[in-house]
Amino acid sequence: MINQDFKSMLSGKSKIRELSEFATALGQKIGYENVFDYSLGNPSVPVIDKYNEKIIELHSSLDSMSLHGYSPSLGNTAVREKVAVSLNKRFGTAYKTEHIFMTSGAAGAIAHAARCVTKPGDDVITFAPYFPEYQQYINRTGARLKVVPANTENFEINFSELDKMISPNVQAVLINTPNNPSGIAYSEQTIIKLCDYLRQKQEEYKHDIFIISDEPYREIAFDGKKIPYIANYYDNTLTCYSFSKSLSLPGERIGYIAVNPKATDADIIAVICGQISRGIGHNCPASSVQQAVAECLYETSDLSVYEKNMNLIYDELVKLGFEVIRPGGTFYIFPKALEEDANAFCDKAKNYNLILVPSDSFGVKGYFRMAYCIDTEKVERSFEALEKFVKEEYGVDIKD
Amino acid sequence: MINQDFKSMLSGKSKIRELSEFATALGQKIGYENVFDYSLGNPSVPVIDKYNEKIIELHSSLDSMSLHGYSPSLGNTAVREKVAVSLNKRFGTAYKTEHIFMTSGAAGAIAHAARCVTKPGDDVITFAPYFPEYQQYINRTGARLKVVPANTENFEINFSELDKMISPNVQAVLINTPNNPSGIAYSEQTIIKLCDYLRQKQEEYKHDIFIISDEPYREIAFDGKKIPYIANYYDNTLTCYSFSKSLSLPGERIGYIAVNPKATDADIIAVICGQISRGIGHNCPASSVQQAVAECLYETSDLSVYEKNMNLIYDELVKLGFEVIRPGGTFYIFPKALEEDANAFCDKAKNYNLILVPSDSFGVKGYFRMAYCIDTEKVERSFEALEKFVKEEYGVDIKD
Repeated sequence: MINQDFKSMLSGKSKIRELSEFATALGQKIGYENVFDYSLGNPSVPVIDKYNEKIIELHSSLDSMSLHGYSPSLGNTAVREKVAVSLNKRFGTAYKTEHIFMTSGAAGAIAHAARCVTKPGDDVITFAPYFPEYQQYINRTGARLKVVPANTENFEINFSELDKMISPNVQAVLINTPNNPSGIAYSEQTIIKLCDYLRQKQEEYKHDIFIISDEPYREIAFDGKKIPYIANYYDNTLTCYSFSKSLSLPGERIGYIAVNPKATDADIIAVICGQISRGIGHNCPASSVQQAVAECLYETSDLSVYEKNMNLIYDELVKLGFEVIRPGGTFYIFPKALEEDANAFCDKAKNYNLILVPSDSFGVKGYFRMAYCIDTEKVERSFEALEKFVKEEYGVDIKD
Repeated sequence: MINQDFKSMLSGKSKIRELSEFATALGQKIGYENVFDYSLGNPSVPVIDKYNEKIIELHSSLDSMSLHGYSPSLGNTAVREKVAVSLNKRFGTAYKTEHIFMTSGAAGAIAHAARCVTKPGDDVITFAPYFPEYQQYINRTGARLKVVPANTENFEINFSELDKMISPNVQAVLINTPNNPSGIAYSEQTIIKLCDYLRQKQEEYKHDIFIISDEPYREIAFDGKKIPYIANYYDNTLTCYSFSKSLSLPGERIGYIAVNPKATDADIIAVICGQISRGIGHNCPASSVQQAVAECLYETSDLSVYEKNMNLIYDELVKLGFEVIRPGGTFYIFPKALEEDANAFCDKAKNYNLILVPSDSFGVKGYFRMAYCIDTEKVERSFEALEKFVKEEYGVDIKD
């Protein structure tokens, strides 16, 4: 019989998807070039040529078994080794092949990491604002996601709220920096404070608490800053990575878990993940994609457009009087709406062909997300609509 | 904390994998050409040229967003439509795009199908001999796999045992024809009998019972016979397919679920599967692989070597006096061992560099599986070792 639990999910459509579909429909009516669609985090810059060239080379020369044959369920061994070496070179870590588990993107990585370090009934903490899919990623394992309310001053971690919510039932903390939706990259100070706090709680509770670090935006950092590499601050870290954003390969579903060699049971966590795969139909990412990505570990797409867009949008929002924290990375910005009800705000914006995502599903009310992984030309053109919107709807006085 | 349930799985290694690793280690010692490795079902024939050419073409010409961008979570819409059309042409079905859900191979397909038509606590029936991973595929959803004992006369379905085991708690029946490990393709008579029986039970229990039909070997049929297409015999059928075997692409993780348009809730099952994906980290198979496979739906690799190998091995086994049912497809054969304990039999075979898989984990005792997706030359060379083995260990008198 059809599972009624999953069937009932059909009525609760994702707001992001709903808005994206609205944008597409509107585009069919008025021309998509006239829709200022800030709804979806779909990378707008192309993959590097080297990736396509490597795929072509592999399909022109490699024998069929080596290219298309079963990859071990933990991932192609040579690929895992290359990932380990690249991380060690870049972050001074000490990963070996056995610490890398290849996954179908960050979603696949978190699906394994969460099951690996929790059991049904355990709690996993995350911090608002957060990516709404975390609800599914965690709650569908049988564990429960507990969301620490946002620190709206700067969207760093709200430690006093964390302290109220933590309990011995918390087995993992899921963090995402640079953050979707806020665009904030946690300061090193915040990271040190969190790690110290969790180490203390591990002592107090006499059990491990793992950090599951969701890092698809690690390479999109602004102002020339480096994003602190979480595993260097906390032993029990499972780093969940995806090449979706750094190489603009979201459709190819390729990522990994890197298990900190200093973590408890570090040498068997990837093997345990291989066991977890068997029950969720994972197996491993496409063998050809694994092999091509392994040749592109030291490169990224040209990500500079995101910083350029961020600067333009941030300045414009400030000019219009929005309360907004300047992003440290990603391709998101998270300003405060001009009325309490972010849904009403974003609904009105639609009349100006502006597609903005209200913040409620990100775990905080009264804000909205703009995903600016779109052409700079369109960003610039969107400002006229934005100005018209805030002037007509909220009487904002625009000074040039 | 590390999940102890998954950790404890590490001690229970798969027999197939253990033997495959033994074969590799032995190969390093005596040369792999001297190991007669019948352990793994890894296709030995290359992919068709057209697939590689299509991949090269896509990576040479298509824009990055169309090739590598997010594919909808149900799969690329154009690909889904092509799959539907190809099935309709080949099997006279009436699939539309909405009935096709693209998956990462048959494992991904079954992971979704099982969750879609059962809830935790439900029973799913399958028939011995069966693919051991079904235990993980079903039990890890929270449902329970119930195995109907084998009909060792011909490895068709044991209906009297099925009748003893069925109950109103059974929500799905998982079948696999042509079958791994027996190589048997169910006769049309068996299929009609099963479908009639399940329809009667649906009436009696007043709820749907779905057939989850695992069909990765559908295209490997012997003696010019066609494998009956299960969905044409039973409305509530979810067809789980993989291109791993037909196109020799196991590493690329590409397959689909085809929802019989006549099934209950047929029009929303694929959408429900999209919801299920969110909780198990699936998303969809690699976008480039989807697009390339869509151009190869009417072709297969040159699968004739499997029938050639089967004929050679079957004749040899009969000559040596083995009890064996002639396979109707796949690249497996499942003879009776020459002693009661199949593990002891296969252990002794190792001394002759013959790697055979004992039948216990397939849900029946006293048999062994040979996966003959290897070069014909090696099959022929293996007979000397096989003859020496049965003569020395079991005193078999060999007549030429």
